[in-house]
Amino acid sequence: MSKRPLILVTNDDGITAPGILTLIEVMETLGDVVVVAPDSPQSGMGHAITINSVLHLDKVSKKGDKTQQYSCSGTPADCVKIAINEVLDRRPDLCVSGINHGSNSSINVIYSGTMSAAVEAGIEGIPAIGFSLLDYSWDANFKASKKYVRQIAENALKHGMAEGVVLNVNIPNLKEKDIKGIKICRQARANWKEKFDKRKTPQGRDYFWLTGEFVNYDKGTDTDEHALAEGHISVVPVQFDLTAHHYIQQLNTWHFEQ
Amino acid sequence: MSKRPLILVTNDDGITAPGILTLIEVMETLGDVVVVAPDSPQSGMGHAITINSVLHLDKVSKKGDKTQQYSCSGTPADCVKIAINEVLDRRPDLCVSGINHGSNSSINVIYSGTMSAAVEAGIEGIPAIGFSLLDYSWDANFKASKKYVRQIAENALKHGMAEGVVLNVNIPNLKEKDIKGIKICRQARANWKEKFDKRKTPQGRDYFWLTGEFVNYDKGTDTDEHALAEGHISVVPVQFDLTAHHYIQQLNTWHFEQ
Repeated sequence: MSKRPLILVTNDDGITAPGILTLIEVMETLGDVVVVAPDSPQSGMGHAITINSVLHLDKVSKKGDKTQQYSCSGTPADCVKIAINEVLDRRPDLCVSGINHGSNSSINVIYSGTMSAAVEAGIEGIPAIGFSLLDYSWDANFKASKKYVRQIAENALKHGMAEGVVLNVNIPNLKEKDIKGIKICRQARANWKEKFDKRKTPQGRDYFWLTGEFVNYDKGTDTDEHALAEGHISVVPVQFDLTAHHYIQQLNTWHFEQ
Repeated sequence: MSKRPLILVTNDDGITAPGILTLIEVMETLGDVVVVAPDSPQSGMGHAITINSVLHLDKVSKKGDKTQQYSCSGTPADCVKIAINEVLDRRPDLCVSGINHGSNSSINVIYSGTMSAAVEAGIEGIPAIGFSLLDYSWDANFKASKKYVRQIAENALKHGMAEGVVLNVNIPNLKEKDIKGIKICRQARANWKEKFDKRKTPQGRDYFWLTGEFVNYDKGTDTDEHALAEGHISVVPVQFDLTAHHYIQQLNTWHFEQ
């Protein structure tokens, strides 16, 4: 390659999260890095975009810093849109999002701000990867992730990615010596059994905290949940054509009057 | 059917939007209706859920009202979760979301709060449909939609829906006599070409409004965009297994060191 690849880095935990600092550090070994990330945590934002309020964008890196960094008041998807349109002077060769503090495996991909940034880049035709570590704590240890994050990003830069596909990478919370390597998987069929924790305000008004328990219904050995449970890093190719093509024929048997 | 079906109604424009009032009116002809909808507009919220703040739930219907109605301070996905767990005394037979003021065809499904509610119900195993009218205005005319909304919901109640599939229904902004009927479609390949409208605050700080132009790259005649342009109502089966199964084989050719 005649010039170093341009890599856009974002996340949903906010620009000061330890996870994105690790991701920046690894990406700086692979190319020129520009960071555009939320100015505050955006977990659980799904693929939200900001259309009813304004966006602020602030340069937070200083003159002479190796990597340009911007914080944005919007969602992860907003960050990718504004990076491409207002920050970068050319199309990035890769967009990476994360490393998220907590799992985005299985059905969590639907709720994930981390993955929404990757999907947004994918919609723009940019190879994109979301990385997540299965540890929700702010002081999660990202050391063991580095080697694998680098390898997956290197492969994406080398091979590119098919149109309409981005990668969802989840990393088990294990020491480096206990990680069994990388496994290509499908999304497990699982969901959350919600429980609402009902409380009363000091004024006596009811309110709720959303909590829940993750339930995996899927006994397949080719799923991300299975790979993670066995100590592998899971890589699921994710698409944003949501059409259930297999169901079109069935729907054509429904009866509609004109 | 020995008892009337239970139908959960929600939306993303908020509980006072004309679109949901039309949807409630139609559903009341088909079953017992319970409404749990956001207390304020949630457009563009994607599949956001509320995990970092609390949720409020208020009964807004009065004693003797035909239909129980609740407003919730959360997102459309929150509304479905809290309805199932805290409001309804049995599983609904159908969940309908909308009628959205504005299109959720093609790639818009990704950003859609309306569809996130339907997907959330689908994850819970409940047949679910999102309805949208191609008119963004608050005083959009939903009259022509009624007949078709009713037919699609009737079919869903009669046939049920496959596991992992919900419906994305878009209705052209036409008079009833000009609507050509219902067409089963796939999601068109299209996206938004963003443009950020850059302005200055009175204090001189830059800020941005996200705007853009919708571009359809897809010349297929089996897409939702094509059906709508021809005057049909589009019905796309939508899945939330996002795995790009066709790409797993390709990814297995990537090289990773252990």
